Formats: sequence, structure tokens, C-alpha cells
Amino acid sequence: MKVGVLGTGMVGRAIATKLAAIGHDVTMGSRSPGNESALAWARDAGGEAGTFADAAASAEVVFNCTAGAHSLAALEAAGEEAIADKLLIDVANPLDFSQPSGPALAVAGTDSLGEQIQRALPRARVVKALNTVNAEVMVDPDRIEGDHVVFVCGDDSAAKERAVRLVGELGWPEERVVDLGPIAAARASEMYLPLWIALMGRLGTSQFNIELRRAAG
Amino acid sequence: MKVGVLGTGMVGRAIATKLAAIGHDVTMGSRSPGNESALAWARDAGGEAGTFADAAASAEVVFNCTAGAHSLAALEAAGEEAIADKLLIDVANPLDFSQPSGPALAVAGTDSLGEQIQRALPRARVVKALNTVNAEVMVDPDRIEGDHVVFVCGDDSAAKERAVRLVGELGWPEERVVDLGPIAAARASEMYLPLWIALMGRLGTSQFNIELRRAAG
Repeated sequence: MKVGVLGTGMVGRAIATKLAAIGHDVTMGSRSPGNESALAWARDAGGEAGTFADAAASAEVVFNCTAGAHSLAALEAAGEEAIADKLLIDVANPLDFSQPSGPALAVAGTDSLGEQIQRALPRARVVKALNTVNAEVMVDPDRIEGDHVVFVCGDDSAAKERAVRLVGELGWPEERVVDLGPIAAARASEMYLPLWIALMGRLGTSQFNIELRRAAG
Repeated sequence: MKVGVLGTGMVGRAIATKLAAIGHDVTMGSRSPGNESALAWARDAGGEAGTFADAAASAEVVFNCTAGAHSLAALEAAGEEAIADKLLIDVANPLDFSQPSGPALAVAGTDSLGEQIQRALPRARVVKALNTVNAEVMVDPDRIEGDHVVFVCGDDSAAKERAVRLVGELGWPEERVVDLGPIAAARASEMYLPLWIALMGRLGTSQFNIELRRAAG
């Protein structure tokens, strides 16, 4: 399948590399066509590199792996028509790194980046996914023992099912991909980030995740 | 030990009942001295009932178990002098139940209820704790299998150690009480609430919690 991965950072490279390795035709999109990180990735992984618009236009499914602060601009550059009614898997978190007290959410409470993206691209089938784990864990959950989970949410059920299958291709069994509901539930998975950041500091590693435990009976 | 529990709801009753059962002298505080819920609790559990000020003044340790929307007013009624430099364990979450889309956080991002309380009572030794699980789980963690965790944070290390011991008396082994850092980390544990609420809807129970899993090595 043709997949466009927007973003050349750790998350974009991890997801693009895994998707290319399992046989998908991946185009990594960035702001400029000469982005060295994207060109190096394409050379190493046997994928393509191009602009955000190139990556979106050629794809059936688009992953937003840009930094949250730049996601809306990146998606605008990709183009509403190019994304149209495609599945858009939003992996970004709206982190603001300018706070002296450390990374904070730029949007929280009664809105979320996932909803902002859905409003900006009303025809796109936005599914928030995978944003609660580190990039290496996203594409290799088996590096952590236990039935730890990731979350999806979105307004389009068929798109969400397709996203769960793609997340499955990255290594996550379906029963460990928890559907939180409509795209408004992106508030829930994004607002988990401050706890993730605090736990990363406490545990001294980003290679961790959470397992759900419930009372028997 | 003399403990004041502010709040007569599920959380206040659960914590007050457990503390009384294990031998502490508990006063449940509420807005009015004739609060029926507090009087009934005192009768059943062998504790005392009184105003917020009564509960705070007589106690060595104060638990804030009021609804987040009323916590600052309740603590003001309890009185800054009465709390002074006591350990104040804040279990509340700043949930706003007036949103049509469901409960939302009234404070999020770069502030938290825990910090608001610490600012309102600068001498108090505020420790945020236990606010990420349902009341029944708070006082009976063994109803859920696994090494699931709760969180504490606060600016005073000695107060935090004392809070961890008290949380231990409620049933939580020390290694499952994760110290997230200073009181500003209340942002992290409070902003987890929207995920907790979404998971409660998804799992169909409030009797659940999270276990931390990390990569070996």
C-alpha cells in the first residue's frame, strides 16, 4: 500500500522504516523537497522522499508524525485536496517546549490537536493513534513485556478499523489497541503526555508503557 | 493519629472509613456541622463529624477529599491557620461536570488544582496522592491483580514520605507508590483523568488501574 509519512523526526523515521520493511511503498514528506533527513531515510530504507504535498498526494493512508506545534501547518502544506477523504493517522502530541518548567501541552481541556486537525480537514478520516508511547515502542511493542496498550480514537468507524489493522502491522495485537471513542477522546490520550513525561523522568527511560488492570468478576 | 477528612462523598467516606477501621481518630469535615452524610458516617464508623474547620483543627494530617470544584472554598473554610504546616493530602480532581461533552478538567496545562491549593496555603505541606483511581480501589488495591500503581507529588520530601506511609496503611506497597516529583507534577496526575474517564467508559467499570511496564535491561 502507498503510505505517506509526514515528518522526518524520530517518530516519522521509525514508522516509515517499519512500514517500508514490511513491504509498503512509503513516501516521507517534509517541508522542503531537499530535506536531508528525508533523503537519507529514503536512500537507506528504499522509500521515497518529497514535500508534504508529495507524500500526501501519492498515498492511500497518511501518517502525521510531525511535531505537534507544526502539524496544522504541515497538513495545510500537504493540502486538503491531497488528503481529502483518506485515512489520516495522527501520531502527534501538541507539546510546547518553550515553557521554562518543561514540555507542556499547548492545547488541553476541552480541545485537542486531534480535533483541531479534524476541524482543519473536515473530509479527512482522522484517527488519533500511538501517541502515548516512544517511537521505538510504537514499532516494536515486544521490547516491553506484558499486555501493555495503545489507544485509538476517531469519528469514522471504518477508518478506525483500518487504523487498528495498520497498528497491528506495526506489531500491536488488536486486543491491545484500545478504542477510546470519537476524535474528542484525543483529549484523553494527549493529556496523558504530562504523566508520560513525568514517568520517563522517574523511570529513567522512555522504553515503558502502561498495562490496564481491572478487578476480576 | 488524628486525621481530618474533608468531604463527605464517595472518596471521603472510603478514606475515612478505612482510616477509622485501622485505628486512627478520624473527623469528617463538611460545610455545615449538621451534614447528614457526615453524621451518619461518624455513627457507623465510630468517628467524629464536624465542620471543615473542626476537622482541620483537630488533626495532625488532613485529607482533601472534596470535589475539585469546591476544594479551594473548603480549604478556606477549614482555615489557613488550622492547616498551617500540616501534611495536607490532596486527593481531589478539578473536574467540571457542566460541559455538555462530559466531565472536563477546569484547570490543565501549566497549572493544576494541587498547585492552586499549595499557593492558597503556602505553609501547608501539600502532597497530591491517590487521585488516579476510584475510591474503592484507593482503600483496597488488592481488589485488582497486578503491580498497578498510584502517584504522589509534593514539594516537601518529609511530608511526601509520610504520605507514602499513610498510603501504605491504605493498602499500597511502597514500591507501587510512584513519586512524580514536586507539586507541579499534579498537572500530570490530574491530566490523566480524561484518559481514566474514557477507559471507564470503554471497560465498563471504575475498578481498574494501570501497571507500569518497562523494557528489560
